[in-house]
Amino acid sequence: MDLAALKQILADVASGKLPVDGAVKGLSRMSYEDIGYAHVDHHRSLRKGFGEVIFGAGKTPEQVCGIMERMCDQETVVLVTRVTPEIAASVTGAFPGAVYHADARMVVWQKQAPENTGRGTIAVFSAGTSDIPVAMEAVLTARAMGNTVEPVFDVGVAGIHRLFGYRDLIEEATVIVVAAGMEGALPSVVAGMTGRPVIAVPTSIGYGAGLGGFAALLGMLNSCSSNVAVVNIDNGFGAGYMAACINRK
Amino acid sequence: MDLAALKQILADVASGKLPVDGAVKGLSRMSYEDIGYAHVDHHRSLRKGFGEVIFGAGKTPEQVCGIMERMCDQETVVLVTRVTPEIAASVTGAFPGAVYHADARMVVWQKQAPENTGRGTIAVFSAGTSDIPVAMEAVLTARAMGNTVEPVFDVGVAGIHRLFGYRDLIEEATVIVVAAGMEGALPSVVAGMTGRPVIAVPTSIGYGAGLGGFAALLGMLNSCSSNVAVVNIDNGFGAGYMAACINRK
Amino acid sequence: MDLAALKQILADVASGKLPVDGAVKGLSRMSYEDIGYAHVDHHRSLRKGFGEVIFGAGKTPEQVCGIMERMCDQETVVLVTRVTPEIAASVTGAFPGAVYHADARMVVWQKQAPENTGRGTIAVFSAGTSDIPVAMEAVLTARAMGNTVEPVFDVGVAGIHRLFGYRDLIEEATVIVVAAGMEGALPSVVAGMTGRPVIAVPTSIGYGAGLGGFAALLGMLNSCSSNVAVVNIDNGFGAGYMAACINRK
Amino acid sequence: MDLAALKQILADVASGKLPVDGAVKGLSRMSYEDIGYAHVDHHRSLRKGFGEVIFGAGKTPEQVCGIMERMCDQETVVLVTRVTPEIAASVTGAFPGAVYHADARMVVWQKQAPENTGRGTIAVFSAGTSDIPVAMEAVLTARAMGNTVEPVFDVGVAGIHRLFGYRDLIEEATVIVVAAGMEGALPSVVAGMTGRPVIAVPTSIGYGAGLGGFAALLGMLNSCSSNVAVVNIDNGFGAGYMAACINRK
Amino acid sequence: MDLAALKQILADVASGKLPVDGAVKGLSRMSYEDIGYAHVDHHRSLRKGFGEVIFGAGKTPEQVCGIMERMCDQETVVLVTRVTPEIAASVTGAFPGAVYHADARMVVWQKQAPENTGRGTIAVFSAGTSDIPVAMEAVLTARAMGNTVEPVFDVGVAGIHRLFGYRDLIEEATVIVVAAGMEGALPSVVAGMTGRPVIAVPTSIGYGAGLGGFAALLGMLNSCSSNVAVVNIDNGFGAGYMAACINRK
Amino acid sequence: MDLAALKQILADVASGKLPVDGAVKGLSRMSYEDIGYAHVDHHRSLRKGFGEVIFGAGKTPEQVCGIMERMCDQETVVLVTRVTPEIAASVTGAFPGAVYHADARMVVWQKQAPENTGRGTIAVFSAGTSDIPVAMEAVLTARAMGNTVEPVFDVGVAGIHRLFGYRDLIEEATVIVVAAGMEGALPSVVAGMTGRPVIAVPTSIGYGAGLGGFAALLGMLNSCSSNVAVVNIDNGFGAGYMAACINRK
Amino acid sequence: MDLAALKQILADVASGKLPVDGAVKGLSRMSYEDIGYAHVDHHRSLRKGFGEVIFGAGKTPEQVCGIMERMCDQETVVLVTRVTPEIAASVTGAFPGAVYHADARMVVWQKQAPENTGRGTIAVFSAGTSDIPVAMEAVLTARAMGNTVEPVFDVGVAGIHRLFGYRDLIEEATVIVVAAGMEGALPSVVAGMTGRPVIAVPTSIGYGAGLGGFAALLGMLNSCSSNVAVVNIDNGFGAGYMAACINRK
Amino acid sequence: MDLAALKQILADVASGKLPVDGAVKGLSRMSYEDIGYAHVDHHRSLRKGFGEVIFGAGKTPEQVCGIMERMCDQETVVLVTRVTPEIAASVTGAFPGAVYHADARMVVWQKQAPENTGRGTIAVFSAGTSDIPVAMEAVLTARAMGNTVEPVFDVGVAGIHRLFGYRDLIEEATVIVVAAGMEGALPSVVAGMTGRPVIAVPTSIGYGAGLGGFAALLGMLNSCSSNVAVVNIDNGFGAGYMAACINRK
Repeated sequence: MDLAALKQILADVASGKLPVDGAVKGLSRMSYEDIGYAHVDHHRSLRKGFGEVIFGAGKTPEQVCGIMERMCDQETVVLVTRVTPEIAASVTGAFPGAVYHADARMVVWQKQAPENTGRGTIAVFSAGTSDIPVAMEAVLTARAMGNTVEPVFDVGVAGIHRLFGYRDLIEEATVIVVAAGMEGALPSVVAGMTGRPVIAVPTSIGYGAGLGGFAALLGMLNSCSSNVAVVNIDNGFGAGYMAACINRK
Repeated sequence: MDLAALKQILADVASGKLPVDGAVKGLSRMSYEDIGYAHVDHHRSLRKGFGEVIFGAGKTPEQVCGIMERMCDQETVVLVTRVTPEIAASVTGAFPGAVYHADARMVVWQKQAPENTGRGTIAVFSAGTSDIPVAMEAVLTARAMGNTVEPVFDVGVAGIHRLFGYRDLIEEATVIVVAAGMEGALPSVVAGMTGRPVIAVPTSIGYGAGLGGFAALLGMLNSCSSNVAVVNIDNGFGAGYMAACINRK
Repeated sequence: MDLAALKQILADVASGKLPVDGAVKGLSRMSYEDIGYAHVDHHRSLRKGFGEVIFGAGKTPEQVCGIMERMCDQETVVLVTRVTPEIAASVTGAFPGAVYHADARMVVWQKQAPENTGRGTIAVFSAGTSDIPVAMEAVLTARAMGNTVEPVFDVGVAGIHRLFGYRDLIEEATVIVVAAGMEGALPSVVAGMTGRPVIAVPTSIGYGAGLGGFAALLGMLNSCSSNVAVVNIDNGFGAGYMAACINRK
Repeated sequence: MDLAALKQILADVASGKLPVDGAVKGLSRMSYEDIGYAHVDHHRSLRKGFGEVIFGAGKTPEQVCGIMERMCDQETVVLVTRVTPEIAASVTGAFPGAVYHADARMVVWQKQAPENTGRGTIAVFSAGTSDIPVAMEAVLTARAMGNTVEPVFDVGVAGIHRLFGYRDLIEEATVIVVAAGMEGALPSVVAGMTGRPVIAVPTSIGYGAGLGGFAALLGMLNSCSSNVAVVNIDNGFGAGYMAACINRK
Repeated sequence: MDLAALKQILADVASGKLPVDGAVKGLSRMSYEDIGYAHVDHHRSLRKGFGEVIFGAGKTPEQVCGIMERMCDQETVVLVTRVTPEIAASVTGAFPGAVYHADARMVVWQKQAPENTGRGTIAVFSAGTSDIPVAMEAVLTARAMGNTVEPVFDVGVAGIHRLFGYRDLIEEATVIVVAAGMEGALPSVVAGMTGRPVIAVPTSIGYGAGLGGFAALLGMLNSCSSNVAVVNIDNGFGAGYMAACINRK
Repeated sequence: MDLAALKQILADVASGKLPVDGAVKGLSRMSYEDIGYAHVDHHRSLRKGFGEVIFGAGKTPEQVCGIMERMCDQETVVLVTRVTPEIAASVTGAFPGAVYHADARMVVWQKQAPENTGRGTIAVFSAGTSDIPVAMEAVLTARAMGNTVEPVFDVGVAGIHRLFGYRDLIEEATVIVVAAGMEGALPSVVAGMTGRPVIAVPTSIGYGAGLGGFAALLGMLNSCSSNVAVVNIDNGFGAGYMAACINRK
Repeated sequence: MDLAALKQILADVASGKLPVDGAVKGLSRMSYEDIGYAHVDHHRSLRKGFGEVIFGAGKTPEQVCGIMERMCDQETVVLVTRVTPEIAASVTGAFPGAVYHADARMVVWQKQAPENTGRGTIAVFSAGTSDIPVAMEAVLTARAMGNTVEPVFDVGVAGIHRLFGYRDLIEEATVIVVAAGMEGALPSVVAGMTGRPVIAVPTSIGYGAGLGGFAALLGMLNSCSSNVAVVNIDNGFGAGYMAACINRK
Repeated sequence: MDLAALKQILADVASGKLPVDGAVKGLSRMSYEDIGYAHVDHHRSLRKGFGEVIFGAGKTPEQVCGIMERMCDQETVVLVTRVTPEIAASVTGAFPGAVYHADARMVVWQKQAPENTGRGTIAVFSAGTSDIPVAMEAVLTARAMGNTVEPVFDVGVAGIHRLFGYRDLIEEATVIVVAAGMEGALPSVVAGMTGRPVIAVPTSIGYGAGLGGFAALLGMLNSCSSNVAVVNIDNGFGAGYMAACINRK
């Protein structure tokens, strides 16, 4: 952390030269801590409204716990995504209050339940039963960020009348997340039924030429409905995060 | 299920305002049941002539059994594709009459043998011995949908005289399924010998630049015979289903 | 042409050793004519129920006319696809009765209107206005092959209620062709509404990541409706031809 | 248009059986007009809050004008994207009030300036000067949909201090659109500076391995900032439309 | 050129220390001439049995003529491939004896007709009429290198009986070149009929998912016949050159 | 097998109407045996000069043994490629004389050592030590087909002077096989040193952007030396087979 | 430009609180000028040792001239890359001292010849004559940045002895740029002959499966020589720039 | 080894005809040893300034140890990359002084610590914690080659202020290595802050559309900063090696 800058800001606040708002803005632009294998970004929640999230893939349980230790001091919610069962065991062992959601491969640690700060409801749809894990990652993320989330699973386009039972939800949600594999057609159909923003998340479910989710990804990018934007394959976390940002007052 | 709509339809039928044909059409357009992780589509067999099929990949044995339980009440045939041995064991344990076909990774459950409803014979060819599992998935699917199916295996283009022993079958079948890996040339050759529709199914068998079946897929899409249409890589189920639809009276 | 074989067949017919059916089958297996730059396949209409089609791309006007000259002697309908305006001018100049359809880049030459030989109606849908040329290629091909064809254009999934006005046509057609670009979602939705076979034809219409139709192609191959099979990008001719084969009695 | 349904709705409203809100909802779900080469979706502005947009690529000037004619009756703003100069000349000739923006390849027709209905400001950044056309398409679209838009051009990551002069705009905008070609890194950096949603639009600007914008697209999908979602390559229109949906109250 | 080495070799030959065979071998390993924009490889015909070939694409007419000027002094045959009409005009103007073959985009210059030095006949097949230009490039190259070449065009697998009229040629040729676009299936079928080596050359002819010849290329690489090796897309020159190398005594 | 045809041929031979040479040719065009999961091609060695080869991948040990049983009756050499250790154990257990070469994943069964029938020597190079398994597959195949084979390993272009110690072998071999991974540059360099045909076989050895051998494959297809043709990734068998065909007298 | 920061820095220098070195560093981190369609980065030459370069593609002549006008005030050398002849004419008309190099599609403007500041010589090789334009872009760039550059053209691996005449240059250069298309093998071979860093630049020269330079790019990335790093396809400018950075004292 | 050449060189040195410098150059061009499965390149350290490195993937422990045995006689440092734990155990067992670095999958064997021979400091950055293994491979390689290396981990662009704490290091390093996965944006940002050469190494860390590092690779190749060159995915070794070559005096 840039100590001099911090001192200057605090001195300026003390002397009345700098109003509190200005100090918050200044602080949000610079602070982090070097713990050797990571630079923990302590002021991210000031800057972005939500703390740093730990991407579990490729990290050892020790690294994850080490990073969490620093973060739990300063944050009220910490998420760990893409955790293996081993990482989950380490983390839930070391941090009471950490809960492992195996279906979404996530650990959620909360000091307390987050305050509901969203403008409205976030709807999360999955096209098939096999897409549920990705959709659940979005659901848990958006909830941890203080949103009301309404999940609906297995309403793909092969039996499109199932979707039509949810027209009211589609029209009333502030933002909609749609997880789909195979041809990834569901986001287009949902988006055609509303003027609300739709976050499409392709999943890697499907046969050979699904190309590990690439077919769904391309389908969604080429949506003929214009209120669709896309996140990476299987990135339910990103979809939930983006939806929460949109739903912020 | 949309109860109000159902009541209205039934009342209208009762009062004579709606003929039976109209009621069937109306019902075929809307019914499903929400069991949490799935929306079971009960009227699919009315709408499409065949019930919902369970895609096993990415589902737990419990989910598959739960979906089957609802379906067996209403259908006479249920197929489960892409099953692991664990799913197969659960299903065959729970549902007498369910048969596991390991070579095609399928479970077929039948209340009774299906009535033969096809216009003619469906021929299913495989280019090599290694393509048999995909071809068998097509054979079992088409049979479960009430068709006479004639399989012929290992007649690829590297020894094309083997194929010519089946000229009569090729000319007399109503529709032909051809499973091939490597360069995927067999469907073109078969299609050049007849005016019947050929459903080509690429398999993921082959060396490095086979790209997991993509080379065969591209070959089939670029067939210089025009009576060829293609389904996804290793999608024997889809090929059999499509053939059954074409063979329907 | 293999003269000896022909003589033998005819002698056998003359002497009563070979019934007429057998002679037809024998002839359908061997005849062609070498004109230097092409081997014209005269007996294709016997073998496949429809004569050879001339793929115009990469051929000179002289080559196209040369091939047509041989074919018009023996066929009642000749199609030329992917024609440039120059080829079209040459062909319509040289062959009265040849009609140029600029929107589908096709020339259709007919001795007389084809007899209607289909089992039922072929429906042809396009997702957008920009997909019409590909759809029209399918319409003209299927009509030339003796079918009743019902076209419906611009009913894509971004306003899916437009499609629902055609539910009766979808349920009653023997086979349905669906041309769509962008994400290629329309075939899945149509196929989910019926048990009839759907031939999906991706078009190259769309933005950058449409990859010249590849996104639509992948979408269609990964359709979650199983009564869908796919032909090559922009291959309206192939879709119409395949539909005609399926609709044959 | 489904006349019976319309009559029923109107009769129900007349008789007091249906409140006005219910009628609006019902109408938004079904109306369109068939003009042969297009099904004009008249009630899209009811359903989605903004009328149908005409995608100009692959349409003739006559088709564009024909569609516009129906739309101008019912809409207050009509956009035509991807227009050629010929289409632009036809449209601006036939429809006074239509303005051609050559740099964005768009025509904007307005009965009157749209009411400002957004929650806040939309910021639109371009990484380079060459990305301006795509960025301008986003700017014009969002403005036509009734938003305050603040454009900033040529602030790419190769001289990242240029971006830091806009920190206040980045923190205060409701939603940010970022257009970038080459490696597409700018959206990640911008998103790392704020908690607001960022819509990334890759452009096809760059050298060989830019793959026509695919490198930028992949870069954006793989952003390590989670408040980023992506639209198709060069799809400035979609980015502006999505931003407007997010900025809606 | 390494003058010292040349002098040493010649001195050694003069003094009887080095037999003529050794001198040839030594010389074949080192000689070239630097003309600024090219290093002309004068001893390639000693080393490889055939002189350097000029790849015309991306060169100016002046560069091509400049390189030819040096080569014509020392070679008896010079080929220029991928020539534009302008290059062809320059070259045929400057070098009497240079002949332009427009269909193969080649210029062939010969001091005299090459001696026939092959072991047997090279057969060159094309699948369609549109593949003839590529096939002709192979034919002209192999002839210029002193081979008897037998071309057969338009015998693709959609009417495979046409191919069977050439069984004797296929069995008797020393090596066979097969040019095919679309699915590229012809080389596999030909190779299955003989034990001779087949050089497959994919062409860029075909519909969208032909991917500019990539589908045919993959098909050929994945051939289930093992006596097939492949050269680059549209590389008729390389196929003819390789065939000539194989046919060399 | 087409019995009638066989009888006719034999009767004609008996009666002197058909010379023995003609009978051999006739027989080589038609014979196979259907054993359910395979159509064994008994006359392949007549037609192609070498018997059918069993591609082990995706077959069960029982299937491989079943096919071998039929083949060993009629052939003097049988190769099984891509065998797992289980298949190898089954085959070597059941067929004395079958030898398992683990490094090449092959089983070679021989009634007796093959007669040396080649025109000259086949040289087989590998670029690195890691490419040896693929190179060995080529060596064993060519030897089993009756050729003298000279292997040289680990002479890649990063230390190109190592290659130059083998100039005499390169110049004197009838045909050269070169296996290389990574950038696949070795075949070009070798081919530049000789006029002999070079069969390039890309291997899947390398870092990430090697794309499982695709980078090497593309490199070889784009070789600037024209006496190079390419087989599939890791297809050492095909390279050895092709080399043997070229080396045949 | 951030005026306050500038004033503070200058005041601090004036008062002796900040030494000159510190001021330079401070200034190099922040200055630019907003001219509407561009943010000209005036202090880039302080920060990076070389001024901003104008990427001409996708800019109008007016935009290029406008940017140049600001830059010529402050820089001694300005490069414009990827210029069309129209841009070149505008620029050379407006700025005396600007020179257009058509072969490299570059304009170079210099107040005076740059001082030679490199540690040694930069060698630039091209594999073929067709690669010269890309190589020349590297040569001109490195020269404009004050380096001695030695170009050698047309020494590709198909006649590798031509390269060996330049062994001394290869061993003595401080850094080597190698431009090559087709299989892109030359950088590996050059790098194997020296311990100096090699910058490889793939060119888009070649046949179909060269994939517009992608084959060469992959080849270079997979080089088995470790002293190779790669820049984008046809990016001669980047290669020259990188070489100049490496050659800086 | 070419014995005659060696003798000649030594004789010439002995007789005073050849100065020592000339002898070193001559020897550096030719020496290797054939040990059957490898051609060990003994004079590589003369030619390139660093000995041969053993690429462990695809080699057996025996092969690695065999190669090392020859190398340890002649080299002072030997690196083995991509080692499995089995290989590591064999090597460290057999060669005292060999150290296994599990995080970088490398074994480093040194006779003694290398002399520091670099011009300055090499900085190595990683974007995330998950990229550390690749970055460590670069660190260890450059250190083994005699350089001072300064590593900084987890400073990616999602919190770019963390990077700015290292501005002095960035400006003062002679060369900078940057390892990054996901979108690979970090090298562009770093390169924009300095005029020093940046070696970018993409890692395979990330979600689905990261394509195993390909997205990062493309991002880096398309960097808008020109002082960036790229090595293969996960190739930390190559990045460190290239940096060491650049840092050499």
